[in-house]
Amino acid sequence: MDHDLAALTARLAAFADDRDWAQFHTPKNLVMALAGEVGELTAEFQWLTAAQSATIMTDDERGDRVRAEIGDVMIYLTRLAAVLNIDLIAAAHTKLDDSARRYPPDRVRGSADKAR
Amino acid sequence: MDHDLAALTARLAAFADDRDWAQFHTPKNLVMALAGEVGELTAEFQWLTAAQSATIMTDDERGDRVRAEIGDVMIYLTRLAAVLNIDLIAAAHTKLDDSARRYPPDRVRGSADKAR
Amino acid sequence: MDHDLAALTARLAAFADDRDWAQFHTPKNLVMALAGEVGELTAEFQWLTAAQSATIMTDDERGDRVRAEIGDVMIYLTRLAAVLNIDLIAAAHTKLDDSARRYPPDRVRGSADKAR
Amino acid sequence: MDHDLAALTARLAAFADDRDWAQFHTPKNLVMALAGEVGELTAEFQWLTAAQSATIMTDDERGDRVRAEIGDVMIYLTRLAAVLNIDLIAAAHTKLDDSARRYPPDRVRGSADKAR
Repeated sequence: MDHDLAALTARLAAFADDRDWAQFHTPKNLVMALAGEVGELTAEFQWLTAAQSATIMTDDERGDRVRAEIGDVMIYLTRLAAVLNIDLIAAAHTKLDDSARRYPPDRVRGSADKAR
Repeated sequence: MDHDLAALTARLAAFADDRDWAQFHTPKNLVMALAGEVGELTAEFQWLTAAQSATIMTDDERGDRVRAEIGDVMIYLTRLAAVLNIDLIAAAHTKLDDSARRYPPDRVRGSADKAR
Repeated sequence: MDHDLAALTARLAAFADDRDWAQFHTPKNLVMALAGEVGELTAEFQWLTAAQSATIMTDDERGDRVRAEIGDVMIYLTRLAAVLNIDLIAAAHTKLDDSARRYPPDRVRGSADKAR
Repeated sequence: MDHDLAALTARLAAFADDRDWAQFHTPKNLVMALAGEVGELTAEFQWLTAAQSATIMTDDERGDRVRAEIGDVMIYLTRLAAVLNIDLIAAAHTKLDDSARRYPPDRVRGSADKAR
């Protein structure tokens, strides 16, 4: 298994091309697919307490479902970013740069109001 | 800027620790934060046609918003996976292995019913 | 079948009480359940064109799924509003009053930028 | 203020017609708008404990935001149901009939696994 984001991006493009599915992969459709998968992931956690959610991976059945849902979310997010020509990692760092400026540690420490 | 997923994961952990925010980063809360950011991303595309969505990055203002929202989604997805000790890239490949088996190219080519 | 929102609200409260499920119906959990159901509803539409989405109810199988998902969304929205003591219809009208002020017909007619 | 669902539905249709926005109100677009608003609602609860979420309406500022977000969700859900010619209340009761059969009180009492 290849743990590299570029390789995953390439595999997703080939997967769509092999099935002539690129025609369905408009950004609008991919955003909806991403939202649908995040909905399924959310459902896995909806009735859990905070403590139960923290140990969910110790339950084999639930853990497998969570890993699969997170895989689906990553698939659509990676594919969406590729179609939009956005660098996922760079986009995250840019937002973090911004958050680091807006939330200096000394001012927000321990406050949920500003937690990001 | 570092384009490596491990470095992003480490930066997110340090960011939370510096602000004493790890206490808020239960899987349940992070899933909600992820869902909230995906909702904002969805809103950017809600009134666009498929064609408009395909050229959204040529609009500087919209393009910047989309890049920022995707950055936020990536931040929470990466942080959630770290807290759950899930390898994001491996989880995506495992799901793709499964989809490759379930959707052989010859059987599903060009069909939206099975598009993944 | 009773078509009254108050009756639905009462039925949902009795349904939860009969199963001792009110303990799980915190606003936080109900919001997650609502988000999960909206995710499933979104998935029904993700690969459809705008035109296909407009005629989805003429497909018996898809139509039944959409009706069921919308039923689920309404269930959790109604239950959430009840638990928070919010009047759903009044809350919608209040937001519409605000939108009517912000988007006068003469200024926004036919513009997707402001479509609400 | 009119507390009747039919009146809200009619007001939403007139609101869209007055602005020539019905053209944007395809089911696909409205589902995305609904998902976007549910995302905003989810964000209001993401860092709260279960206990904090239960008293959120006692905080005037947060309470106003939650009421406004729930109003937005209700607006898009009502409009979507109207465009699809689905009776919201009837759809909810039909799903509840089904849940009542699948989850008899004696079998599921107090179990989060089946909580609906």
